[in-house]
Amino acid sequence: MDLDFDTKVFDKEYIAVADRQEPIVRGGRHLFDRLPAAFDGVRQLGVIGWGPQGSAQAQNLRDSLGDAVRVVVGLRRNSTSWDTAVQAGFTPEDGTLGEMFDVIRGSDMVILLISDGAMAETYREVFAALRPGTTLGLSHGFLLGHLDLVGDEFPADIDVIAVCPKGMGASVRALYLQGRDVNGAGINASFAVHQDVTGRAVDRALGWSVGLGAPYTFRTTLRSEYLSDLSGERGILAGGLHGIVESLYRRFRDQGMSDEDAFRHSAESVTGPISRVISRDGMLGVYRMLNSDEKQVFAEAYSVSYPVGLELMHEIYDEVRSGDEVRSVVLAGKRLARFPMGKIDQADMWRVGQKVRADRVPDEIPLDPFTAGVFIGVMMAQIDALLEFGHPYSEIANESVIEAVDSLNPYMHARGIAYLVDNCSITARLGARKWAPRFDYALTQRAYPVVDDEQSVDIEIFGGFENHVVHEVLRVCAGMRPSVDIFVE
Amino acid sequence: MDLDFDTKVFDKEYIAVADRQEPIVRGGRHLFDRLPAAFDGVRQLGVIGWGPQGSAQAQNLRDSLGDAVRVVVGLRRNSTSWDTAVQAGFTPEDGTLGEMFDVIRGSDMVILLISDGAMAETYREVFAALRPGTTLGLSHGFLLGHLDLVGDEFPADIDVIAVCPKGMGASVRALYLQGRDVNGAGINASFAVHQDVTGRAVDRALGWSVGLGAPYTFRTTLRSEYLSDLSGERGILAGGLHGIVESLYRRFRDQGMSDEDAFRHSAESVTGPISRVISRDGMLGVYRMLNSDEKQVFAEAYSVSYPVGLELMHEIYDEVRSGDEVRSVVLAGKRLARFPMGKIDQADMWRVGQKVRADRVPDEIPLDPFTAGVFIGVMMAQIDALLEFGHPYSEIANESVIEAVDSLNPYMHARGIAYLVDNCSITARLGARKWAPRFDYALTQRAYPVVDDEQSVDIEIFGGFENHVVHEVLRVCAGMRPSVDIFVE
Repeated sequence: MDLDFDTKVFDKEYIAVADRQEPIVRGGRHLFDRLPAAFDGVRQLGVIGWGPQGSAQAQNLRDSLGDAVRVVVGLRRNSTSWDTAVQAGFTPEDGTLGEMFDVIRGSDMVILLISDGAMAETYREVFAALRPGTTLGLSHGFLLGHLDLVGDEFPADIDVIAVCPKGMGASVRALYLQGRDVNGAGINASFAVHQDVTGRAVDRALGWSVGLGAPYTFRTTLRSEYLSDLSGERGILAGGLHGIVESLYRRFRDQGMSDEDAFRHSAESVTGPISRVISRDGMLGVYRMLNSDEKQVFAEAYSVSYPVGLELMHEIYDEVRSGDEVRSVVLAGKRLARFPMGKIDQADMWRVGQKVRADRVPDEIPLDPFTAGVFIGVMMAQIDALLEFGHPYSEIANESVIEAVDSLNPYMHARGIAYLVDNCSITARLGARKWAPRFDYALTQRAYPVVDDEQSVDIEIFGGFENHVVHEVLRVCAGMRPSVDIFVE
Repeated sequence: MDLDFDTKVFDKEYIAVADRQEPIVRGGRHLFDRLPAAFDGVRQLGVIGWGPQGSAQAQNLRDSLGDAVRVVVGLRRNSTSWDTAVQAGFTPEDGTLGEMFDVIRGSDMVILLISDGAMAETYREVFAALRPGTTLGLSHGFLLGHLDLVGDEFPADIDVIAVCPKGMGASVRALYLQGRDVNGAGINASFAVHQDVTGRAVDRALGWSVGLGAPYTFRTTLRSEYLSDLSGERGILAGGLHGIVESLYRRFRDQGMSDEDAFRHSAESVTGPISRVISRDGMLGVYRMLNSDEKQVFAEAYSVSYPVGLELMHEIYDEVRSGDEVRSVVLAGKRLARFPMGKIDQADMWRVGQKVRADRVPDEIPLDPFTAGVFIGVMMAQIDALLEFGHPYSEIANESVIEAVDSLNPYMHARGIAYLVDNCSITARLGARKWAPRFDYALTQRAYPVVDDEQSVDIEIFGGFENHVVHEVLRVCAGMRPSVDIFVE
């Protein structure tokens, strides 16, 4: 796909890695004075929905845009989020909170951040309420996947763009607030221009992304976005992570560790030191800080986990690309009234985790080399699968690594697995519930038994690790933002 | 759906339970002399494929039909099964073994028993090779599901029928052989008539089923069959069973049992005494043989497992009905060359199982009341889901209970989980791999934590058990066949 673009408002640069050049735009608060130009022609910007993304984006955009554009939140009249939106300063009295279809009809640009299930159910009414020439904004490509499935299309007389922060809503807001002190702190985002009837779609998208606080913004397509986004959250970002740490916890206990130590060497190790080192020094950084015995353990764990991860990532990608996963989410949405989503953190492991977090001494969390090998092995499998399927470097690095270590894992580190998974979109929550057990079983049935019989580990698999192109991609991406730790209470 | 039918060759009876009457035909070797009339107009019967069903059905039909109809096996020229078919007495020399398309072209009736994946890939060539007026036989409705997906249809000038044994191929053959000594021993089957251009479709289907040794044959439709068949094998028959025993094994170990005792109280208990009692005295029989403390444990385990099972069965049914599951199987088939299906019995639990089986004292296998409550709770959830979706009683009883206790579980009891799962169709093998971990996680995360906090068990859920209509259905079905134990080496 051709990812180049022209912007009249911002400064385009290129990320050059290996054989590719990918155009991007850096963000920062010093660019906020360009936002009026980017949003030229937009008097009212409607943000529809008050989930994790909706609440974060509405507040960030209001704070960034100031008086230039009126940011109005639209909700269903009986929405349970109405009061929290009021508490955040959006009120019917000053015209910044209203019924969703009223807001849609009155906005020049509409950012639609309702749940995917609600999107599938109400998109026809939403389309009908959009005036010709409106810019419709999405924060991921799910709706396109759904339209493909049902054989429908976007109205021809509107812009369709997307800005997709590569992190959960909570961190989109938290890092934006940190950006007051550290210019450029934020969550990277991709953008897509699917239809451009106004001729202003690119700059509106870039303005939206800069306004959210994205350190840098790269281009993708709606389809490439939802393929990588749904696959990534089913993979290492949520489903894979959950299955990995459950399988490791059990393994360490079976090897004789106490419950608490098993939790420290599995979940704590991933969300603490492993994620922190990856964020700072990449995956290679983790490997390089191990001693030679630990390097051997890492390499073996990597070599048995990578193939299992690769197979599952191919299955996940096939399921997403075929439409199965989108259809599955829509069907699940219809069952939720009768079968509400269950809790995932009631089993013993996560009760142990609560205790471990309460007693935590941060410097004493082990960086377990076996755990690191499994986690990074599955992470690299996801990277290789997305490379094989033709995704741009930036998308791969953000969907497989940066979003994990800079947005999601710190939340799990602070609050546990349910806090990570259940602060994501319903689509991600369902996907994580579906795929976590698959990763767990596959590792337990097919990876760990091989490493326990040392002779049979195919260590050649690890040979691809050290010289992998993704390390350079991560280094370049890391250079795009200041180094800040995510603040999680 | 109207399930009544007319037969000129066999004797129709009605199963009457509660408010319904379902027509059926009893089988038995004393009816083999009617097979020539049932197959009137069929000189050559081609059986295509030599998987578990193909090999069992070809041999049973050859043995039952004698000289009346020539049974010819058709395989791809380079099939690895060629030699085993020869060993079973099908040879190119006497014209009973040939290249599959030659056999299809030369047959008046063609029973297509190749894998579902192969069916999806080659059905166009198969259709092209069928002469007008041929009777095409299937052993389940998968192909209809696939045709629906790709928007294709069966040729209009052929019969399309199905006979679907409610048991794995190995037991279709084993019980047929037992039928020499005990008339009527066999595996029940459903039949469907999807197209009838010859006017002989019903009797050909019934003749086929009687020739396989089915104790009784009930009618369904191709669509109802594949919906219940795919759902059942993903549910209690294979996927659910696997997830249930894994979760229970872990639970019992965590409660302090030795590995061996944990295996005895989980897997051994289900595949041994629980299945045997259900086979003889139904699910009620299990409950009634418990003492009052055990009854309480059973009721609590049932009450927490049933809701989790019901939710998963609704999800499974939605996935099957929407086409997701069929598409998923076709996609998985395409990945198998690169990612062969992995082993499911390498983890510690199944190594323990081998030891336990080797040391087994059959009379000392515990009938664990908690295990029984979980297994029967999920089984009843499957029954209630299939009832809600409108399936006939016979189909529900066979797909949820009889196939489990009379065909599948005895194989697992003899040889372990992989022997059960991996002797099923590829569709079932993939489905079991996909859904077993879901049952495991759902029970571990949401059922067992509730029972561990006694106050919160909603024991009302158990209230529906004792007077459930399915108990009478099972009693009537059990009366259709002699009582024989399945012989498994």
